[in-house]
Amino acid sequence: MDVRNLISFDDVDIEWWDSLYALCRDIMSRPDDYRDACRGKLLASLFFEPSTRTRFSFQAAMLRLGGSLFGFSNPNETSMSKGESLADTIRMTSCYADTIVMRTKQEGAAKAASLYSEVPIINAGDGGHLHPTQTLTDLTTIARVRGGVGDITVGLCGDLKYGRTVHSLVTALAKFPNIRFVLIAPEVLKMPDYMLTFMRSRGMAYSVCDSLEEAIDSLDVLYMTRIQRERFGEETAASSIDDIMSRFTLTVDKLRRAKADLTVLHPLPRVTEIERAVDNDPRAKYFEQARYGMYIRMALLLKLTSLPRGASYPQNEGGHACDNPECVTRTELYLPRLVTPDGACGYCDKQKRAAV
Amino acid sequence: MDVRNLISFDDVDIEWWDSLYALCRDIMSRPDDYRDACRGKLLASLFFEPSTRTRFSFQAAMLRLGGSLFGFSNPNETSMSKGESLADTIRMTSCYADTIVMRTKQEGAAKAASLYSEVPIINAGDGGHLHPTQTLTDLTTIARVRGGVGDITVGLCGDLKYGRTVHSLVTALAKFPNIRFVLIAPEVLKMPDYMLTFMRSRGMAYSVCDSLEEAIDSLDVLYMTRIQRERFGEETAASSIDDIMSRFTLTVDKLRRAKADLTVLHPLPRVTEIERAVDNDPRAKYFEQARYGMYIRMALLLKLTSLPRGASYPQNEGGHACDNPECVTRTELYLPRLVTPDGACGYCDKQKRAAV
Amino acid sequence: MDVRNLISFDDVDIEWWDSLYALCRDIMSRPDDYRDACRGKLLASLFFEPSTRTRFSFQAAMLRLGGSLFGFSNPNETSMSKGESLADTIRMTSCYADTIVMRTKQEGAAKAASLYSEVPIINAGDGGHLHPTQTLTDLTTIARVRGGVGDITVGLCGDLKYGRTVHSLVTALAKFPNIRFVLIAPEVLKMPDYMLTFMRSRGMAYSVCDSLEEAIDSLDVLYMTRIQRERFGEETAASSIDDIMSRFTLTVDKLRRAKADLTVLHPLPRVTEIERAVDNDPRAKYFEQARYGMYIRMALLLKLTSLPRGASYPQNEGGHACDNPECVTRTELYLPRLVTPDGACGYCDKQKRAAV
Repeated sequence: MDVRNLISFDDVDIEWWDSLYALCRDIMSRPDDYRDACRGKLLASLFFEPSTRTRFSFQAAMLRLGGSLFGFSNPNETSMSKGESLADTIRMTSCYADTIVMRTKQEGAAKAASLYSEVPIINAGDGGHLHPTQTLTDLTTIARVRGGVGDITVGLCGDLKYGRTVHSLVTALAKFPNIRFVLIAPEVLKMPDYMLTFMRSRGMAYSVCDSLEEAIDSLDVLYMTRIQRERFGEETAASSIDDIMSRFTLTVDKLRRAKADLTVLHPLPRVTEIERAVDNDPRAKYFEQARYGMYIRMALLLKLTSLPRGASYPQNEGGHACDNPECVTRTELYLPRLVTPDGACGYCDKQKRAAV
Repeated sequence: MDVRNLISFDDVDIEWWDSLYALCRDIMSRPDDYRDACRGKLLASLFFEPSTRTRFSFQAAMLRLGGSLFGFSNPNETSMSKGESLADTIRMTSCYADTIVMRTKQEGAAKAASLYSEVPIINAGDGGHLHPTQTLTDLTTIARVRGGVGDITVGLCGDLKYGRTVHSLVTALAKFPNIRFVLIAPEVLKMPDYMLTFMRSRGMAYSVCDSLEEAIDSLDVLYMTRIQRERFGEETAASSIDDIMSRFTLTVDKLRRAKADLTVLHPLPRVTEIERAVDNDPRAKYFEQARYGMYIRMALLLKLTSLPRGASYPQNEGGHACDNPECVTRTELYLPRLVTPDGACGYCDKQKRAAV
Repeated sequence: MDVRNLISFDDVDIEWWDSLYALCRDIMSRPDDYRDACRGKLLASLFFEPSTRTRFSFQAAMLRLGGSLFGFSNPNETSMSKGESLADTIRMTSCYADTIVMRTKQEGAAKAASLYSEVPIINAGDGGHLHPTQTLTDLTTIARVRGGVGDITVGLCGDLKYGRTVHSLVTALAKFPNIRFVLIAPEVLKMPDYMLTFMRSRGMAYSVCDSLEEAIDSLDVLYMTRIQRERFGEETAASSIDDIMSRFTLTVDKLRRAKADLTVLHPLPRVTEIERAVDNDPRAKYFEQARYGMYIRMALLLKLTSLPRGASYPQNEGGHACDNPECVTRTELYLPRLVTPDGACGYCDKQKRAAV
């Protein structure tokens, strides 16, 4: 499968993943041989929203391949404040770069950008929508630590409602055999119905649980996420929030009940949802995960920066309607009409996510 | 001609341009051969004013030559907030770098910087004053697309009063044979008298027109600029502004009347002054222009970064007087007296521009 | 002596300095031979506090070795605003980088970071506490200009109370033979008692003087620092402050009385404490000092980036108490207990500095 842009992990097939991961393994085994692999190549790094770890990871990946970077890490440094359209910013940037990685607040912005770029676009997070290179990072860590991705019971713990990394991971795991989930979340942050429907439609078993302690002994992989206190609303007492959050906090104590080969993941940054003492447990893989994320991004950049330059710009602009206020089409009014086969917005997937 | 700093396009002669453009063409024809041409060289990129495209263009240019960059893209990251003088900031930076590119709010700042630098200074925009590498970009695009710069009718459309790129272009074109202008602007934004005087003195013919539609069929090159609504003042009704602006907007419709080999340029960012549908017309060259801008900057950096290090610091500081409130001498009080042969401020050219 | 992190110049011995300076001299004598010395190496540049010159100096140093950089120059670009601990930020960053250079507002932060990093940490300033690479810069300049560091009379002029560069320099000079000081400062900014005690304990002679004019003829090295007007408090009249400051300002006039081979240093940025006309005197070495700072940082980076990766994370976190409100332990509550042999805080050295 030829992949030109990485907007959503949905767009790729298992063969593409396999070849990407094979390349990643080769890089990990002899990194010095790749030290000049992207020499003379330029990555534009457009972070319209601040980020530390994703930005660092891409920068380190490109630099370790001998490539170079330019861009901005702060929306205030851009020309969009002069009223320039996203399309123009991208088309201009693609004149200078060999690949563009971008993070935005608007959902669907990376998809929109891909219509106006002469070079590959990598989505490094478009609002609450997608973050496919985090998914690559998660899969790489599981594959590396466990020897493969299939045939596992995965506990998803914390905020399963708003957590885009969790949804992306579930969607991606559907491509692998024999995946079972345990969904461990407070009532107000439980997995949305459309995601449950998706799991059933793809034959992935799941059970639901409202305490990490109960679930932990059955897990091969535990994917922890941060719960934001504000999600509980003002009507919930602080002490009651503390009680809830403690049920979804990973502690040394709870870890005693887990399998000896459990793999604990976290997209980071971590706040209080994993006790610091857990870091010293060999099952805690979330910092190694950061390093694997760099290697898989190296593989991705190596593949994409070598693609030939080219674009076919939209001929019929305008006419798109989407009722998601966060959708990129609400500010970039010229974007051409784009609808998925199942009737969702082709930029932000809104209908699919309507149940949220 | 030996050119050490690029402060104003006025400072260079046609031979220098010819050799620069010849180098640029060679780079475009075999870019890979220049991949290490600036290896080991450092460009300091000092953007005291935010910029996306000029900054990107310089960064991409330096990186594509195998050189490196450091600097800042945001005035808040500088030591000038600690009360350091521009002279000291430049003298310090020139200890670390091989060339300095800078953008400032103050007019004449690049000239001032050149007095205190051990390495070449490139002016990437000093307030409303000069922007010579935009002019290089414009000339390169005309030369490349049309085979040469002379013998053309150039339409200048939009804001001809405040547009520094337009004034710089006119000044630069005076060095080429047989240039005719059509000045297409609303009354309040028409070309200043001192520029008209300049054109006459250099034998460049011009006519004046207040509608793009009327003028377009006679043009070989159309240089579009952005009109800012605020220029019209509060006493002008919004609908009336809309009417005016539509007369200076390039549309697919108007383009039908233009020559088949018209070259449409725009310094970007574009807002509404060029209809988006025009982008798909082969005569629209403003995105290619961005790419040519990168190549001519590569040629410029290649020439300047190889010059030997050295400076002769001013012996007699102070004593300069300029009544332009935007002039660098108003904040950098120590700057030595500098006056042009025709009595203008040697930093900001003020008297010359008094008619504005 | 094996040095893994450069947190304080106190941590290193004279042999380490000698070997570092020897490497620096070799780099200065044939810089082109080091153009690829750090090829493939990555420096993370974490400036939680803005800085121009220290940041530029490290960036130029790393780039001139053929290495690369990533990081941030502005606290607002970091994830720490999402509540991430310093320990996690460092541990994550050390997954991507080969060395980390950091500047923080909190005192002791670099020490804290070194406990959680797989790669060397360089302290580029931790609040008002330490700035060891400035000290390296000062020593390099003295060594280079005078042929060696020992056997000199050093005038320290300006703010000797709050000036961290001055305290670091005094501490460092204790490692060299035959150093005498003349302390030239206003009453309210005089050298703290604990520093005087330190000098006596290390056999360094000092005299005290409240006018630069009186002291200047006896000096081999004059180290100038900036006096901030706010230090005098609101009860001091502006004219009286002017009088005081003029006694500690270096002028061409005062310089006439100085030795012909005096070496004038300043950590920069300079404001009014050195008259601009002094810059043209060959004894003024403060801009050359900036260049030497780049070379000694090249030597430092070359040594540290080649060390093997590794960490032993603290097993017992928490339990540290420090009453310095600027100490890193006041915000990073998990930090393990760390006390110096003489009972001071192992992060910020508080007790030692209690006399301030």
